[in-house]
Amino acid sequence: MGQKVILSGMRPTGKLQLGNLLGALDNWVKLQHEYKCFFSVVDWHALTTAYDDPSGLKENVYEMVIDWLSAGLDPEKNVIFRQSDVLEHAELHLLFSMFTPLSWLERCPTYKDQIEQLREKNLATYGFLGYPLLQAADILVYRADAVPVGEDQAPHIEMTREVARRFNFLYNKQVFPEPATILNQVKLLPGIDGRKMSKSYGNVIEMSEPPEEVRRKVSQMITDPGRIRKNDPGNPDVCTVFAFHGVFSAGGKDTVAEVCRRGEIGCVQCKKQLSDSLVEYLDPIYRRRLQLAANRDYVREILRKGAKRAKEEAARTMEQVRAVMGLSL
Amino acid sequence: MGQKVILSGMRPTGKLQLGNLLGALDNWVKLQHEYKCFFSVVDWHALTTAYDDPSGLKENVYEMVIDWLSAGLDPEKNVIFRQSDVLEHAELHLLFSMFTPLSWLERCPTYKDQIEQLREKNLATYGFLGYPLLQAADILVYRADAVPVGEDQAPHIEMTREVARRFNFLYNKQVFPEPATILNQVKLLPGIDGRKMSKSYGNVIEMSEPPEEVRRKVSQMITDPGRIRKNDPGNPDVCTVFAFHGVFSAGGKDTVAEVCRRGEIGCVQCKKQLSDSLVEYLDPIYRRRLQLAANRDYVREILRKGAKRAKEEAARTMEQVRAVMGLSL
Repeated sequence: MGQKVILSGMRPTGKLQLGNLLGALDNWVKLQHEYKCFFSVVDWHALTTAYDDPSGLKENVYEMVIDWLSAGLDPEKNVIFRQSDVLEHAELHLLFSMFTPLSWLERCPTYKDQIEQLREKNLATYGFLGYPLLQAADILVYRADAVPVGEDQAPHIEMTREVARRFNFLYNKQVFPEPATILNQVKLLPGIDGRKMSKSYGNVIEMSEPPEEVRRKVSQMITDPGRIRKNDPGNPDVCTVFAFHGVFSAGGKDTVAEVCRRGEIGCVQCKKQLSDSLVEYLDPIYRRRLQLAANRDYVREILRKGAKRAKEEAARTMEQVRAVMGLSL
Repeated sequence: MGQKVILSGMRPTGKLQLGNLLGALDNWVKLQHEYKCFFSVVDWHALTTAYDDPSGLKENVYEMVIDWLSAGLDPEKNVIFRQSDVLEHAELHLLFSMFTPLSWLERCPTYKDQIEQLREKNLATYGFLGYPLLQAADILVYRADAVPVGEDQAPHIEMTREVARRFNFLYNKQVFPEPATILNQVKLLPGIDGRKMSKSYGNVIEMSEPPEEVRRKVSQMITDPGRIRKNDPGNPDVCTVFAFHGVFSAGGKDTVAEVCRRGEIGCVQCKKQLSDSLVEYLDPIYRRRLQLAANRDYVREILRKGAKRAKEEAARTMEQVRAVMGLSL
């Protein structure tokens, strides 16, 4: 043992965006050196909202693993696997459901939020109500010590701890630890039109865009609308380009702001500088992706091995769970 | 193929009673000659209400299989297995949950009934709400053509058909048949005190009682309270013993009623006759049980083989399910 265990997952809903890279994936890449990590492509979770059209799911699983590997996750070091390959997640979810009050799920802040946000879908389903409990099973089946998540998911980790406590209490055995929350440090990036970056707005930069596409998108970014001529003083605080400089041009950020305010740099040149920084940042990712994208067999093999390792660990947990719940003969 | 498929199950909650034998098990024994039958000890279902104390579950699983075999189920001919050994039930349950409206479950007549009846337990759990959907998975994972159930469970089979239809419609493929309901012919038997036979009343006759115990319990049965002396005319319609004669003394039933009404038979003798019929009826069961009860290894082996056969069939179904839901790579 010794090494602490982490579980985290992402829903395969399409190619990852810069926000996913900075908000979660870069964090995972760091965590892989300190923890034994289980990284799960949670395809069942994707179905909670995409059950009526799962046609893109398979493709999205490949793309997600390729994005992960491109960002620097090591498939030897970490257990990279697909949730639906490990049926023990479904088993533990079902067993947890026996003693989990409906009210715990109905109270989840994400539940009513998402039903509201995704009005066009019918999400008043049994599975959608229960998905935080499936998350609890995802985490606890590996007896994870900690879970890196975004702030919006923090209440689910709190519920996971409640589930662990209730199980340990009911069956009078410390089977599960109470996993800690590791909050991802989110660097907020707007979309290229200055609004929230979102597929539905068509303003997204994906982490795997080719360099020329990155440059094209940066050139389209909305800048300070009050700045008409190149030599007008600009206001970086309302400029999308500057928001990106803040993240990707760490050293040069203050300089950029200064020369913009003095009207000493034009937007075109400023965008050129950002494109250079961004392309440089994404270059290793892009190059790794080029090698991987054609090699589906390699991805399948990683997922196969990952599932095997995940199942071994899950089986150890489930042996204990079945014993205390009267399910072993 | 050719042979139609049946799935049925019972919750392992203790030794079976005469009511279970006549209401369901005798029916199964007949059906095994006409259908390919999957008979499942549904231990997960037992946990929906017994989650807070599963200490007797394991023992009850053994006892249930022994009761089944004693009653005449053939472990070679039928697939006799334990639900929790086939994780695909949990997987399919989870997948069904994605598209099953909460309202289908909340509307189930058994749901509010049981919450009302078992007030002392906290059954407002996620698992209790979802158990009819787990039943749907139990049935459809074997693509059963028909399900023998008691009348109270008939609405669940109706919901199972709805789930099958919704799945086939959403994924545009006829994966599941719509299983028919085979209503068990229930012969109502009162407990020995004339009330409903129920463990909580302590008025039960188990199907596996030794002959002397059967005789003792029959001797305690409540008869017509208006009959004081042996030669008083009796009223069979209010007599517990007569209710049993109706089932177990098929030929002699009318004679019994006649001589009772004329006061020509005393209750002691009448009980003696019933004891003889009942002991004769239960004798082959009791003798088979004597052989089996000591042999746990044999029961374990039946369940192991049954699980293997069940998993093979479930795997065939799940391959199709995963394919249409975007879950195969």
